[in-house]
Amino acid sequence: MKTVRLDLSHSPYDIHIGQGLLQRVELIVPLLPQKQVAIVSNETVAPLYLEKLRASLEGAGVCCHSIVLPDGEQYKTWETLNLIFDGLLANRCERKTTLIALGGGVIGDMTGFAAAVYQRGAPFIQIPTTLLAQVDSSVGGKTAINHPLGKNMIGAFYQPRLVLADLDTLNTLPDREFSAGLAEVIKYGLIDDFEFFEWLESNIERLMSRDSEALAHAIERCCRNKARVVAQDEKETAGVRELLNLGHTFGHAIEAGLGYGAWLHGEAVAAGMMLAAHASHELGQIDDESVARIKALLTKAALPVAAPDLGLARYRELMAGDKKVESGRIRYILMRELGQCYAGELPLDVLEKTLKTGCDR
Amino acid sequence: MKTVRLDLSHSPYDIHIGQGLLQRVELIVPLLPQKQVAIVSNETVAPLYLEKLRASLEGAGVCCHSIVLPDGEQYKTWETLNLIFDGLLANRCERKTTLIALGGGVIGDMTGFAAAVYQRGAPFIQIPTTLLAQVDSSVGGKTAINHPLGKNMIGAFYQPRLVLADLDTLNTLPDREFSAGLAEVIKYGLIDDFEFFEWLESNIERLMSRDSEALAHAIERCCRNKARVVAQDEKETAGVRELLNLGHTFGHAIEAGLGYGAWLHGEAVAAGMMLAAHASHELGQIDDESVARIKALLTKAALPVAAPDLGLARYRELMAGDKKVESGRIRYILMRELGQCYAGELPLDVLEKTLKTGCDR
Ligand SMILES: NC(=O)c1ccc[n+]([C@@H]2O[C@H](COP(=O)([O-])OP(=O)(O)OC[C@H]3O[C@@H](n4cnc5c(N)ncnc54)[C@H](O)[C@@H]3O)[C@@H](O)[C@H]2O)c1
Ligand SMILES: NC(=O)c1ccc[n+]([C@@H]2O[C@H](COP(=O)([O-])OP(=O)(O)OC[C@H]3O[C@@H](n4cnc5c(N)ncnc54)[C@H](O)[C@@H]3O)[C@@H](O)[C@H]2O)c1
Ligand SMILES: [Zn+2]
Ligand SMILES: [Zn+2]
Repeated sequence: MKTVRLDLSHSPYDIHIGQGLLQRVELIVPLLPQKQVAIVSNETVAPLYLEKLRASLEGAGVCCHSIVLPDGEQYKTWETLNLIFDGLLANRCERKTTLIALGGGVIGDMTGFAAAVYQRGAPFIQIPTTLLAQVDSSVGGKTAINHPLGKNMIGAFYQPRLVLADLDTLNTLPDREFSAGLAEVIKYGLIDDFEFFEWLESNIERLMSRDSEALAHAIERCCRNKARVVAQDEKETAGVRELLNLGHTFGHAIEAGLGYGAWLHGEAVAAGMMLAAHASHELGQIDDESVARIKALLTKAALPVAAPDLGLARYRELMAGDKKVESGRIRYILMRELGQCYAGELPLDVLEKTLKTGCDR
Repeated sequence: MKTVRLDLSHSPYDIHIGQGLLQRVELIVPLLPQKQVAIVSNETVAPLYLEKLRASLEGAGVCCHSIVLPDGEQYKTWETLNLIFDGLLANRCERKTTLIALGGGVIGDMTGFAAAVYQRGAPFIQIPTTLLAQVDSSVGGKTAINHPLGKNMIGAFYQPRLVLADLDTLNTLPDREFSAGLAEVIKYGLIDDFEFFEWLESNIERLMSRDSEALAHAIERCCRNKARVVAQDEKETAGVRELLNLGHTFGHAIEAGLGYGAWLHGEAVAAGMMLAAHASHELGQIDDESVARIKALLTKAALPVAAPDLGLARYRELMAGDKKVESGRIRYILMRELGQCYAGELPLDVLEKTLKTGCDR
């Protein structure tokens, strides 16, 4: 087991990465203010892992309620969140009942938000079961639900007390979901960890075959990167955390433009990172070879490298509606060189050329 | 104008109390990260004060959106909250748009919660227009909405950047609402400010005639008391803040037992404080004369001094559902002496006698 510590001054916590962690109840129990938990999962993940987790917790004398939600991003809404509150209140759960998220990013984001606002704040533990959730969404305390007018518009910064990334759970993850998670993994290499980018180039086949040792290394490295950034800028005010949005300004536009669900988030981020690479190349900051290396790595990860052709106007409109907007100007995460990103703006003509080069047509 | 400072280490803020504050835009503008605000009010308060506030803000070059909600505790729900999000998103408000609550505690609680979770946290200003909101709900950062299974079950601790208590707005407040606010005022005297309790005994008639000078003194004193407690225990973890619940364990049971809306919150708190007084008397802690003084003051404030007779079993059931419960035991705020409260439990037989003495029959 590897452990990454997230060093927040007021509420530091550990991210454990390894095999068989669902049974390692001694990692969880000391963190519970009361021996009562509510495990929140969904209809896909619950049949696979809920009983295992429940059995190990009950073995340690913990009273477990479980709340099983429908599966899918389309349920990341207030109505579904309310099912969590209904379950908690029906079981008379107090504000010291710990909420445990068992699932991917959707379950993690919703459960975290439910914990943030249930009786003004209940304890919370993340057990992420997708690669994306293990390297990204479970770490850092961003929680949210969607609003009909925008994704993740309603939420809170709310830190878990523990993140348990059990590598065994990844064995049942569909290939497409696994690749989508790799997009976020590759993102960390591109943001500011060139050494990791090169490691990924050498080990992408091992990752694709879900080799535990390679996965453990990659997940630990991502968590370490994210933990460092989050510790510097917990609430996304200092701009440091902004870099984690590499590929996301474009990516969110792609997801919204195609209609949520058409592409997976990670797929849209992959195409978005390619657009960021093209834009940076257009600005004269990275060379042809760098663009080619990014493209090759994403391709080996079975990710899209061309963005859908929504047209300049539609892209701009979609990106202006994205929430990473300061007084109307759109911010992009761009590449100064391979493995080194910064936040900035894009002149309109550069954006136009970028879309010409980077979109499927 | 009087000013009380709430000394929170990370986000201190001022509570200004005085006449004509709606026009004192120079108190607001320096606190806005962007010259854009969304004023949230309701159908009763908006016609009275919204234009005045809007005119003064627009005069200072601030772009104002306004969101007018239906009036009433029954609208303190997710559906109504969503109207705030709809309004913010329809106007493309960013996370630096400041939300201003203009209204009583319902508007304050909902707007505060909306600000807490809109894009994971937008700036927030309170302009309380009821006495209850000026002395209690606008100070301290507790925000919430109701859930069908419980009042204030979903919420956040989220501090405003400023509280403006404009005494002029109290002139239009219905008498019953005004008295309900006085219940919370009297509460502060009882908790741990005997000097203030005696001041209230001497000045209750001036308060009832809404004398501005007396009101300013009382509101300042209440805010000072609440600010001190909140600064010591921002998130209600240390037990200090618990004392603010004097009369509330019983009061919430009364509100729920009669059906929300039958009694005003402050009315239920008044009857709840009388029950707390009877219980403390039963425990041998305060004498007959003290009980009589509390009763006399509440009566002069036109508040109920007898609780509805819901029966012992129903009271217990209702209070066990109240959220101030630690592992199933019910906590009460009781009086050690007149003007000095503490948190503790009540033996069943004492509770029974208390209800016998304190309930209307
Ligand atoms: N909070 C953050 O910082 C953050 C960061 C990135 C993404 N997100 C959010 O995360 C969400 C995406 O997360 P995701 O990619 O994990 O999607 P997801 O939670 O929808 O999971 C993807 C699919 O895999 C299934 N699944 C999960 N674990 C499985 C397992 N072990 N075996 C088999 N199937 C399994 C799920 O039921 C689902 O059908 C989005 O809502 C996004 O907004 C949040
Ligand atoms: N957050 C906290 O710490 C806290 C503390 C106490 C109470 N509360 C909450 O506050 C709420 C009660 O607040 P409230 O008593 O202010 O009730 P309220 O907000 O419902 O206001 C009472 C009535 O007075 C009207 N009104 C408001 N200002 C007026 C004015 N100036 N002139 C004429 N009419 C006016 C309102 O429209 C409403 O009809 C409850 O929901 C309670 O849970 C919160
Ligand atoms: Zn992402
Ligand atoms: Zn109250």
